[in-house]
Amino acid sequence: MALYSMRKAHRCWRFIRALHKAPDAAPAPQKDAVKRIFSGIQPTGIPHLGNYLGAIESWVRLQDKHDSVLYSIADLHSVTVPQDPAVLRQSTLDMTAALLACGINPEKSILFQQSQVSEHTQLGWILTCMVRLPRLQHLHQWKAKAAKQKHDGTVGLLTYPVLQAADILLYKSTHVPVGEDQAQHLELVQDLARGFNKKYGAFFPLPTPILTSMKKVKSLRDPSAKMSKSDPDKLATVRITDSPEEIVQKFRKAVTDCTSEVTYDPAGRAGVANVVAIHAAVTGLPVHEVVRRAAGLDTARYKLLVADAVIEKLAPIRSEIEKLTLDKDHLEKVLRAGSAKARDIAYPVCQEVKKLVGFL
Amino acid sequence: MALYSMRKAHRCWRFIRALHKAPDAAPAPQKDAVKRIFSGIQPTGIPHLGNYLGAIESWVRLQDKHDSVLYSIADLHSVTVPQDPAVLRQSTLDMTAALLACGINPEKSILFQQSQVSEHTQLGWILTCMVRLPRLQHLHQWKAKAAKQKHDGTVGLLTYPVLQAADILLYKSTHVPVGEDQAQHLELVQDLARGFNKKYGAFFPLPTPILTSMKKVKSLRDPSAKMSKSDPDKLATVRITDSPEEIVQKFRKAVTDCTSEVTYDPAGRAGVANVVAIHAAVTGLPVHEVVRRAAGLDTARYKLLVADAVIEKLAPIRSEIEKLTLDKDHLEKVLRAGSAKARDIAYPVCQEVKKLVGFL
Repeated sequence: MALYSMRKAHRCWRFIRALHKAPDAAPAPQKDAVKRIFSGIQPTGIPHLGNYLGAIESWVRLQDKHDSVLYSIADLHSVTVPQDPAVLRQSTLDMTAALLACGINPEKSILFQQSQVSEHTQLGWILTCMVRLPRLQHLHQWKAKAAKQKHDGTVGLLTYPVLQAADILLYKSTHVPVGEDQAQHLELVQDLARGFNKKYGAFFPLPTPILTSMKKVKSLRDPSAKMSKSDPDKLATVRITDSPEEIVQKFRKAVTDCTSEVTYDPAGRAGVANVVAIHAAVTGLPVHEVVRRAAGLDTARYKLLVADAVIEKLAPIRSEIEKLTLDKDHLEKVLRAGSAKARDIAYPVCQEVKKLVGFL
Repeated sequence: MALYSMRKAHRCWRFIRALHKAPDAAPAPQKDAVKRIFSGIQPTGIPHLGNYLGAIESWVRLQDKHDSVLYSIADLHSVTVPQDPAVLRQSTLDMTAALLACGINPEKSILFQQSQVSEHTQLGWILTCMVRLPRLQHLHQWKAKAAKQKHDGTVGLLTYPVLQAADILLYKSTHVPVGEDQAQHLELVQDLARGFNKKYGAFFPLPTPILTSMKKVKSLRDPSAKMSKSDPDKLATVRITDSPEEIVQKFRKAVTDCTSEVTYDPAGRAGVANVVAIHAAVTGLPVHEVVRRAAGLDTARYKLLVADAVIEKLAPIRSEIEKLTLDKDHLEKVLRAGSAKARDIAYPVCQEVKKLVGFL
């Protein structure tokens, strides 16, 4: 669940940690009831197993459980780093196909393209005028990114958490699935909502983080790192469209250790634990149960068993993606319809904001 | 002529100095022909004499001379510093009334409200992703403003020159009336256009500064400072709606010096020179001619003569503003119609930009 991390990897934010703040002078209109869920994902093409198990599966569950759920393909966030236009266009369609194939249902949730709803940047600008520079400069992700780029990141990379706040607040979202690396950003969203409500009267709900049972999938080649699309080691990452042969090969080469027994010990045996965790996630069984069933297998044979389970899990998704990507018109139509629905919610909120600010 | 300076004063940028840059690898589609003029002014209520003589008069001349001229009431720029919503709303209408009364003719130029054209922030975001932080931090105005506010300016105050670039480029403007304090900002606009053209192919003209015969009006109480709306000394600034009595009083109290003769010596006798310059500007006579005609008058009597000339010049404007401000509906209608016309130009440009960037 979640959206647009700054990692070049599969930019997808996941907020796990619950953020608790003392109630404010300008209270949120609704605090606890799940009224509207918002999340987003950057269009980076075909998701990998980590994206699927870590976020997209929970998105599907949330749309089944709640009435108003929005998922944004966050292309405005993509351009905070250089993009090839043709690749970005294709990646947007690929991500749409993948989300649909994974079970995102446009009848149950609003799946839309961020750049097609102009209200995002409008509210983004207003919020940009409500935040001080040091606040953004002190965000961990900016510091890490700026350091990496020798402090040469674009201004969009600095201010994107404010646009993210606009994404969420524009729909008066009450709940946001969050990952640890975005905890600070959700605090910023809450502070901006609080600041706006204080100045203009209670308007935005303070979005609450949603705790979901997200699985953290590690690289198959280095279990200390997350699985990532941009991993230079091609064997590290399973894409949800990988062929059965590729999946078998990647699991066969998955790093484990010299002990042949299958146990679940993330601290002591991170490689094996990662494979076990994937197995549990794709079968829906508890970890102790998959370990029990693996009794008697050595890790080499166990990895092939897990590969088979992954292949079985991904097979229908893969074939659905293949089908969907053949029909570009359909994908574009889905995005257009979703963006229109999103706009129907965003427009009146933005108009109200503009009225409050003094623009109308 | 021009727009949105950061001075709390009457935020209105004037670019006098011509900016010359070597031709670039990605040349501007049109370079010299005046195809489209763009300028803007922040809605700060009723303009003062400095705004009128320094900018608005030239706006009127430009709309008479050129086919495609846009003037933006730059309310999105206003919120880079805190605003009272009711005051901002009223100031927008007041500025509209003042511009119309001064001769801006919605049949000849497009007078519109920036916040009503959503494409400004959309292009603004795209350009924000094309500029590096140090570039903005090194702009003089940000440095001055940030220092004044103990480096506590909003991020909007830092990034507003990028939104200004979007304002100009959104209409593929070829010419921009500019003031000295905005020279750096126009360089930024040109660089952003150049950068965009280099990446996506020749698309934006490089906007060229327009040299106009703008008058620099100084404070009547301190001729070393510009006339400014926010001057704490109420006698320093003549608003274009001041009554004849107020104008007489302000000129009577205008700082001159101990010499009674009227001469034009801006360096040695700044106070008298300011009064002479105002006289020349409101009568349309050359400076030497107004000085010649003042022969035999002492400065005290001369100041009253100038006050009379200012009263005469402003009388029709003042009465027109009085009339216009009574008809709020008409002012709103003018802005709505202008904003619709602006959108008609902005929308296809923004769509093309989004296509080039990979959003469509």
